[in-house]
Amino acid sequence: MEEIVTTAHALAEAARSSVLPFFRSADLSADNKLAEGFDPVTEADRLAEQAMRKVLAEMRPEDAIVGEEFGAQAGRSGLTWVLDPIDGTRGFLAGTPTWGVLISLCDGSGAIFGMIDQPYVGERFWGGFGAAQMTGPLGNRPLRVRGARALEEAILFTTFPEVGSPEERAGFEAVAGQVKLTRFGMDCYAYALLAAGHIDLVIEAGLSNYDICAPIGLIEAAGGIVTDWQGGPAHEGGRVLAAAGETQHAAALEILSRFS
Amino acid sequence: MEEIVTTAHALAEAARSSVLPFFRSADLSADNKLAEGFDPVTEADRLAEQAMRKVLAEMRPEDAIVGEEFGAQAGRSGLTWVLDPIDGTRGFLAGTPTWGVLISLCDGSGAIFGMIDQPYVGERFWGGFGAAQMTGPLGNRPLRVRGARALEEAILFTTFPEVGSPEERAGFEAVAGQVKLTRFGMDCYAYALLAAGHIDLVIEAGLSNYDICAPIGLIEAAGGIVTDWQGGPAHEGGRVLAAAGETQHAAALEILSRFS
Repeated sequence: MEEIVTTAHALAEAARSSVLPFFRSADLSADNKLAEGFDPVTEADRLAEQAMRKVLAEMRPEDAIVGEEFGAQAGRSGLTWVLDPIDGTRGFLAGTPTWGVLISLCDGSGAIFGMIDQPYVGERFWGGFGAAQMTGPLGNRPLRVRGARALEEAILFTTFPEVGSPEERAGFEAVAGQVKLTRFGMDCYAYALLAAGHIDLVIEAGLSNYDICAPIGLIEAAGGIVTDWQGGPAHEGGRVLAAAGETQHAAALEILSRFS
Repeated sequence: MEEIVTTAHALAEAARSSVLPFFRSADLSADNKLAEGFDPVTEADRLAEQAMRKVLAEMRPEDAIVGEEFGAQAGRSGLTWVLDPIDGTRGFLAGTPTWGVLISLCDGSGAIFGMIDQPYVGERFWGGFGAAQMTGPLGNRPLRVRGARALEEAILFTTFPEVGSPEERAGFEAVAGQVKLTRFGMDCYAYALLAAGHIDLVIEAGLSNYDICAPIGLIEAAGGIVTDWQGGPAHEGGRVLAAAGETQHAAALEILSRFS
């Protein structure tokens, strides 16, 4: 358990060193990974995942690895590190400090540990095994979700107003119409804010497993709830509902389940 | 000129000390300034403006002051400090590091100096008198907009997808349909990213003078362009178009002017 946390910090350090020299650099260049649409992959993304795989080869050679850039590598321990070297590449390209390095450890049932690292701000949020904490510009502190709150009092986040398909957008907007405040554009940083007790709900769609496993490990350790739009497990990706308490979760789920 | 820059840094330091103890604190409480809608004003907002007014009373007693929280105070120098202690109070309440302290100095013709300070990240962007620079987690550097670029290659920011009135939203979306990437949710931080050369366009509506004077001073000093949607001066607020180069500005203006 301690070894897992130590390994995760080593992974985050390796990723930071790889990524930071590229952030806001003049020669930052983006490929278009998809023939259609805009899904930039930077050299930083690849270097960071390579650096993290090297750390795992040394510290945890028995574990399997799934990474956004270089796919799956089998293991023998029953545990899998799920890595996204830069979650929020669009934000990264635009210079916003809301992208993050996602590091998580999964067993057969889902995420048992999750870490979100924001190298530029110097913030790191991690949780698992019943405890969650962060370190950042104002020092260290334990993380705890804000708890139950009526939907009318909730703060809701997602990254893009279009959310996903037209039906997924309609589901999101049905919830957004009920909450106090809706905000956009934070990528994985929104999940960190939820774990830290600042916001109530994150709703997204079209996620991959490497987008959501770290938020799940972190948020569950901070006392929050992460499911799909039917209330089932979310660690495979797809449609995700993260909540700071049962009240918000149940109210949002009641609305979203009509759009599934 | 040097005295003005020194004063601006003193103002930013005073605001930081007032605001940071409230950011992400458990007892952060928000009033509703408007009877309808959600426009939180925090104690931090008021304390920061009071602290800044105290600095000006000592350092620049002849200058006039306009602040978001405490209105206008007359002066005798022909110069006016325009202050917004927390631009992006919604983001502040939600814990995002994208709000900022806005400090600017205006003469009769508009903003001659502008500063955007992000106390949590420890970033400060300022410009005027032909030079612009920043300091932050990666040290100091000069600021320069990225320059001319086709609209199809541009990165566009605004804070809320609704932008303003239905017509203003339609204008924004007409430009958004032409650009490479559109992002939301950054408050004043988007103008700092534009001055720093990372993005191409910021389009907003319904702004007050204290929302836009600091971005104008900063962006113009970094070589960028800020106008209203008709190409006229923007320092009174309202509809704003900020651009990193003449190509993007002209192309966006051609579209937006149809919606004015």
